[in-house]
Amino acid sequence: MESLSVALGSRSYPIHVGADLLARADLYQPYLGGGSAAIVTNDVVGPLYGEKVRTALEKAGARVTQVAVKDGEQAKSWQTLERIFDALLKARCGRDTLLVALGGGVVGDVAGFAAAVYQRGVDFIQVPTTLLAQVDSSVGGKTAINHALGKNMIGAFHQPRAVIADVATLDTLPERELRAGLAEVIKHGLALDLPFVDWLESHVEKLVARDRAALAYAIRRSCELKAGIVAADERESGARALLNFGHTFGHAIESGSGYGAWLHGEAVAAGMVMASELSLRIGNIQKSDVTRVRDLLKRAGLPVSGPALSPERMLELMAVDKKAAKGRVRFIVLEALGKAALRGDLPEPAVREAIVAALQ
Amino acid sequence: MESLSVALGSRSYPIHVGADLLARADLYQPYLGGGSAAIVTNDVVGPLYGEKVRTALEKAGARVTQVAVKDGEQAKSWQTLERIFDALLKARCGRDTLLVALGGGVVGDVAGFAAAVYQRGVDFIQVPTTLLAQVDSSVGGKTAINHALGKNMIGAFHQPRAVIADVATLDTLPERELRAGLAEVIKHGLALDLPFVDWLESHVEKLVARDRAALAYAIRRSCELKAGIVAADERESGARALLNFGHTFGHAIESGSGYGAWLHGEAVAAGMVMASELSLRIGNIQKSDVTRVRDLLKRAGLPVSGPALSPERMLELMAVDKKAAKGRVRFIVLEALGKAALRGDLPEPAVREAIVAALQ
Repeated sequence: MESLSVALGSRSYPIHVGADLLARADLYQPYLGGGSAAIVTNDVVGPLYGEKVRTALEKAGARVTQVAVKDGEQAKSWQTLERIFDALLKARCGRDTLLVALGGGVVGDVAGFAAAVYQRGVDFIQVPTTLLAQVDSSVGGKTAINHALGKNMIGAFHQPRAVIADVATLDTLPERELRAGLAEVIKHGLALDLPFVDWLESHVEKLVARDRAALAYAIRRSCELKAGIVAADERESGARALLNFGHTFGHAIESGSGYGAWLHGEAVAAGMVMASELSLRIGNIQKSDVTRVRDLLKRAGLPVSGPALSPERMLELMAVDKKAAKGRVRFIVLEALGKAALRGDLPEPAVREAIVAALQ
Repeated sequence: MESLSVALGSRSYPIHVGADLLARADLYQPYLGGGSAAIVTNDVVGPLYGEKVRTALEKAGARVTQVAVKDGEQAKSWQTLERIFDALLKARCGRDTLLVALGGGVVGDVAGFAAAVYQRGVDFIQVPTTLLAQVDSSVGGKTAINHALGKNMIGAFHQPRAVIADVATLDTLPERELRAGLAEVIKHGLALDLPFVDWLESHVEKLVARDRAALAYAIRRSCELKAGIVAADERESGARALLNFGHTFGHAIESGSGYGAWLHGEAVAAGMVMASELSLRIGNIQKSDVTRVRDLLKRAGLPVSGPALSPERMLELMAVDKKAAKGRVRFIVLEALGKAALRGDLPEPAVREAIVAALQ
């Protein structure tokens, strides 16, 4: 096991990465002050790993409740929260209860938000069981549910007390989700760290083949990079936006195709190609850099072009996405491979050309 | 106008108390960074003061949206939040929007919680228009909605950027609500400050008669006392519990009578009598102290005995209330007039006797 820290003063927390961590009572024990814990999981992950986590929590001395929510993005709803609150209140969980989010990004987002608002906030631990959640969503304290008018519109910044990333859980992850998780790993390299891009180019086949050592390194390095950004900008007023490389295009792909048709990581992969093409068109990077991006994503089994949407529709979707937030479409572009930057002043023709280049 | 401060480091904020403050653009202006504001009010207060606040915000340069929610405790629901979120999203309010909670405690609680979670948190200002909200609920950052299984079970600690308490708005406050607000004013004296009890004993008739100078002083002193506690214990892990003097009994009265039958302040008044009777029975205070409590509350036109509930039912309701939170009934008792303390070890017979003494 390797451990690293997200440095946030009194809210700092460790991320543990390794194999077979779920069952380790000592990793939960420090956070069980009140003696009561509630596992929030879903119908898929619960049957696989719920018992293991429950046993560990009980070994650590906790009285344990478990609640399963539906799988999938549509579970990020108030109805799901109500189900969690009902279970917590029926089990008489007080303010000193520890919530344990056991599952992928959806479980982490919704359980984290439940923890943020249950009795005005209780502690929680992230136990991510998908690669996407291990390298991205479980770290940084962003929690949310969706609103009919926008994704993640209702939520909170609520940092976990710890993240336990058990690579053994990736054994049961569907192939397509593994690849979608790799998109965010690659994003961390492209946006923040050229040496990590180099490493990924040498190890991408190992990652796809679920080599545990390679996965553990990729997770650790991704978390390190993300933790550095989060520590500098917890509430996303600046640098943290760089983690959205590929996401402005990606969100348009996701919503334009109907949520669920594309996995988030798949949409981000195609979105990163668009963002790279855009970076090329404003003279930031070379054609050969774009080729490296495309090749790496292809080798990870990820899409490098968008769905059958017109560039007009894509532009419209991006405008809606951003108007709700800020009134102006901002893009994360590459200044070089491994170095992203935020730009709010890009000419629409260049954006349109970049979309067209990745719709072929 | 007088201004005092709630000292919470980078989250410190001013409380302005005075007459005719609603229309002062300069009080809103510092918080309008994004140029967009949303007034959250209710069907009663909106028609009275909405236009005044809107005009002031517009004068301060804001683009203003307004949303009215239902009046009353049942408005502290997810449905109300959804209505606010819909309005904010339709008006394309971004993260830099300022929410303005214009109304009583319900509006403040629900608008404050909306601000806590809309796009993971936006700024808000409390503009309380009831005495209860001016002296209590608008200060301290507690926001919440109710759950079928408990009041204020879902919420957040989210401090406002400022509180604007305009005593002129009390002109339109129904008599009964004014008196209910006085219960919390008296609570601040009884729990925290004997000289303020003395002052209240000299000025209670002026307060009931809505003398503006007396009201302004009572509001300012209440806010000062509460601000001191909040600064020391923002998240209610210790001293802040003292502000719940009378509330354990009071909540039981409210829920046992069906929410709405008793106003919160009325239930707290009878609850404070019970808590004083309890303090007498454990030898903390004298019979004459209890008499002072009863007399002051009576002069404020508040109830000094509970509803037609058996002591058994009261005990049961208090157990439910607290088991959901902690597993043990804790009481705030008086060690002397003006000095409350938290006790978790009180014998049930004394509690029962105290209830009986205030059910006559």
